[in-house]
Amino acid sequence: MAKLRVHNFSTSLDGFAAGPDQSVDEPLGVGGRRLHEWVFQTAGGRRMIGETGGTTGVDDDFFERGFTGVGATLMGRNMFGPIRGPWGDADWNGWWGDDPPYHHPVIVLTHHPRPPLEMQGGTTFHFVDAPVERAVEQAFAAAGGKDVRLGGGVSLVRDCLRAGLVDELHVPIVPVFLGAGERLFDELGVLAGYACTELVASERVAHVVLSRTR
Amino acid sequence: MAKLRVHNFSTSLDGFAAGPDQSVDEPLGVGGRRLHEWVFQTAGGRRMIGETGGTTGVDDDFFERGFTGVGATLMGRNMFGPIRGPWGDADWNGWWGDDPPYHHPVIVLTHHPRPPLEMQGGTTFHFVDAPVERAVEQAFAAAGGKDVRLGGGVSLVRDCLRAGLVDELHVPIVPVFLGAGERLFDELGVLAGYACTELVASERVAHVVLSRTR
Repeated sequence: MAKLRVHNFSTSLDGFAAGPDQSVDEPLGVGGRRLHEWVFQTAGGRRMIGETGGTTGVDDDFFERGFTGVGATLMGRNMFGPIRGPWGDADWNGWWGDDPPYHHPVIVLTHHPRPPLEMQGGTTFHFVDAPVERAVEQAFAAAGGKDVRLGGGVSLVRDCLRAGLVDELHVPIVPVFLGAGERLFDELGVLAGYACTELVASERVAHVVLSRTR
Repeated sequence: MAKLRVHNFSTSLDGFAAGPDQSVDEPLGVGGRRLHEWVFQTAGGRRMIGETGGTTGVDDDFFERGFTGVGATLMGRNMFGPIRGPWGDADWNGWWGDDPPYHHPVIVLTHHPRPPLEMQGGTTFHFVDAPVERAVEQAFAAAGGKDVRLGGGVSLVRDCLRAGLVDELHVPIVPVFLGAGERLFDELGVLAGYACTELVASERVAHVVLSRTR
């Protein structure tokens, strides 16, 4: 069975997976970059931005795992860009330049559909206005038998957790404070149906993996 | 210099260090016991409750560290008991029976002073109505040159963090969800003046140690 997987969804010690006030200059909200600094110290993270060097080991292994066996990505509209409401005449095509690091179909959940956007390197953004369960189905169809990676943002991951749609969730806990933003584990009640299946720390990050138990 | 130290202050994955609705039957709030189950799997934790066996290693080492070099404990009134407001004619003498596991002076911060309460085994509870800075001073005086352990509860630890009074804070992150209760890292803003000095995981718990940097 293909899975819906969340990887490298870093949170701060105070529980925030995104800072407040997302904007063009702060795609992850104010302070949000600090959640992902560990990625750029790994060999895989450095390779992703065209650099060499970086660490191997626990952090690198977890980072790389997020790219294995994935045939499509599902993301919320706010992860695709900072524009809210109608697209207007902005020619926004994502944060990632002409060759986004997906190389497969990306389903973007939005109340404002627009034509598919084909990028270089095999990434095509498909804009879908649908209930979350239906969007997940579309992502699985696009993945052609492989797994679907749920990219974010925070509110979409929470929606999918609440609906029991997530099969595997990897949360790197980074020992920094954001003070404000969007908490990942909020308004979920006592999240049932998930168990911690991995708990490993490097010097920089504590990695938690939750897996669906039913 | 003697230090103000917090140890074994377990939080859930969703950030709660105590469950909601503390009562005589639920000293740690509803669900709060789950935060401390790891303690009773360690050799030190089992010894504390008169049992044998238990694990050695990371969890046990962290548990035991909380008892080393401590000359006094400081706690909030809600950690001492479930009674709110005036003491009335209740003869409440803490959660811990006739021989509490402190064996040194314990300063209880309360707006309702009462005479000191001398227990078996060297524990005496002193009830102090004072600003938190003054209560910390009294605890250091009572500790006779040794460190002071800040026992809790959550709101007192937050007050002391905000005031920059805590020197060392050990937080075991336990991969369970409480869904509600008191969050440790809440309303603190971007907690400045602290750095993560240790990050270690066992199979059960991720241990984070924050130390004051100034």
